[in-house]
Amino acid sequence: MAAAALSFLPSSSSSSVSVLIRRRRSAASPIRCLSSPSPTPPATVLSQDDLKKVAAVKAVEYVKSGMVLGLGTGSTAAFVVAEIGALLSAGKLSGIVGVPTSKRTFEQATSLGIPLSTLDEHPRLDLAIDGADEVDPDLNLVKGRGGALLREKMVEAASDKFVVVADETKLVTGLGGSGLAMPVEVVQFCWKYNQTRLQELFKEEGCEAKLRLDSDGNPYVTDNSNYIVDLYFKTPITDANVAGNEISDLQGVVEHGLFLDMATAVIIAGKEGVSIKDKVSLL
Amino acid sequence: MAAAALSFLPSSSSSSVSVLIRRRRSAASPIRCLSSPSPTPPATVLSQDDLKKVAAVKAVEYVKSGMVLGLGTGSTAAFVVAEIGALLSAGKLSGIVGVPTSKRTFEQATSLGIPLSTLDEHPRLDLAIDGADEVDPDLNLVKGRGGALLREKMVEAASDKFVVVADETKLVTGLGGSGLAMPVEVVQFCWKYNQTRLQELFKEEGCEAKLRLDSDGNPYVTDNSNYIVDLYFKTPITDANVAGNEISDLQGVVEHGLFLDMATAVIIAGKEGVSIKDKVSLL
Repeated sequence: MAAAALSFLPSSSSSSVSVLIRRRRSAASPIRCLSSPSPTPPATVLSQDDLKKVAAVKAVEYVKSGMVLGLGTGSTAAFVVAEIGALLSAGKLSGIVGVPTSKRTFEQATSLGIPLSTLDEHPRLDLAIDGADEVDPDLNLVKGRGGALLREKMVEAASDKFVVVADETKLVTGLGGSGLAMPVEVVQFCWKYNQTRLQELFKEEGCEAKLRLDSDGNPYVTDNSNYIVDLYFKTPITDANVAGNEISDLQGVVEHGLFLDMATAVIIAGKEGVSIKDKVSLL
Repeated sequence: MAAAALSFLPSSSSSSVSVLIRRRRSAASPIRCLSSPSPTPPATVLSQDDLKKVAAVKAVEYVKSGMVLGLGTGSTAAFVVAEIGALLSAGKLSGIVGVPTSKRTFEQATSLGIPLSTLDEHPRLDLAIDGADEVDPDLNLVKGRGGALLREKMVEAASDKFVVVADETKLVTGLGGSGLAMPVEVVQFCWKYNQTRLQELFKEEGCEAKLRLDSDGNPYVTDNSNYIVDLYFKTPITDANVAGNEISDLQGVVEHGLFLDMATAVIIAGKEGVSIKDKVSLL
């Protein structure tokens, strides 16, 4: 991860949670960066899971009683769901309805007694909270390495606010920059044709397109009976908006893992503490 | 069908195949309209199937030996496949490779001895020939009432030329104008949510969105394990390009039946004869 991507973190602070408000000017999407104040340095070094949990608890501060909530998937999102369940049990939250983005989250939320629904019943959500695989400086994301990109995108696009929780290893200067998979869900019919087209689309970025396989070496099949072609970039995607449109224009592509202009806030857990970047309407 | 939609047909001609060259000026897509010459009036009235067959034979004139061909689906396309098979058997065509758009076409072509392949093996085709459900004056189409819209669009978008064969009842002044189904293939997950969103997208056109059912009253499932939401419009779609983009932007939509700027020629079988409209690079 490039150092520049962490520039909003308090580099000179010795506390895990410190004050920083820096404002970036961006015509397209003004981003505000801030951290929670804390006067004292941490007594112990927090583990990665501790940091994820701290960030998750921070994210749940956005949750208010009566909200319809999109519930994400993954290790960080699981802490979010656990926190919501705890607050409901303690009577500190009430009237919550959750819309899960995976079977796994459905099961976790059910076990915690969180009332659940679907987009069919609740086509508009107040807030969604989820993890991400990559976060760029403008809060654009790569998501879906877990294979649930379509359901995640459907639920999160239907949410008035979308808060992302990530650890600092997910920060990139440009999407695709981690060198890890950017997933594209494609229909099974002539998947190889689409694999070739996807790879050619990103010649400039030195893209390698690979069919995702399961642990038995067979094609990985999504909840929607599709395949996933994973794109690996040597250099970050030049223009993510153009890329997203070009991918979507390919017949047989069902969804892609670029989540552009969707996140309203990103909560980042790092060695230096927890920071928040959010989009503000006015600077 | 509005009379205006037939304005390019030879209204004063009594021959079934008559001469007409009329040129329309259109900045986006110049269209040339012409019919084949025939000095004598027809001796008998041709049936609908006869007309389809005449148009199909006309379409196959575009086929040259050695071509990789997209083979459409439906009653008119079946005449096309039959004609190609006959020409191959007679030795008048050779070296043809067909890429079928459905299992039905695959079976017909196989029975006729037409060598077949897929987009995986042949990602670029010379020519595709297929039917259509609606044809507008700019050769934009509605297709896919048979449920094979995704495979048809994949194959036909991969073709250098795409010739459409239709009878005159398919002509409309604006897409959606027939009042019949414009299909949208959606993932099964939260299909009702997408049905609602699709209907709301076309409030202006008085759209009714219905889940397609099979003969047993169960949801119709496509070859790609998806559902189809059929859109019925009271008035034609105001701007098909905008509509196509808006439909594609909905997460969970796999493909739609608007085939825009794809057809390079349309061969129309009507009571007055067979006419051809094609796109020319220069007027």
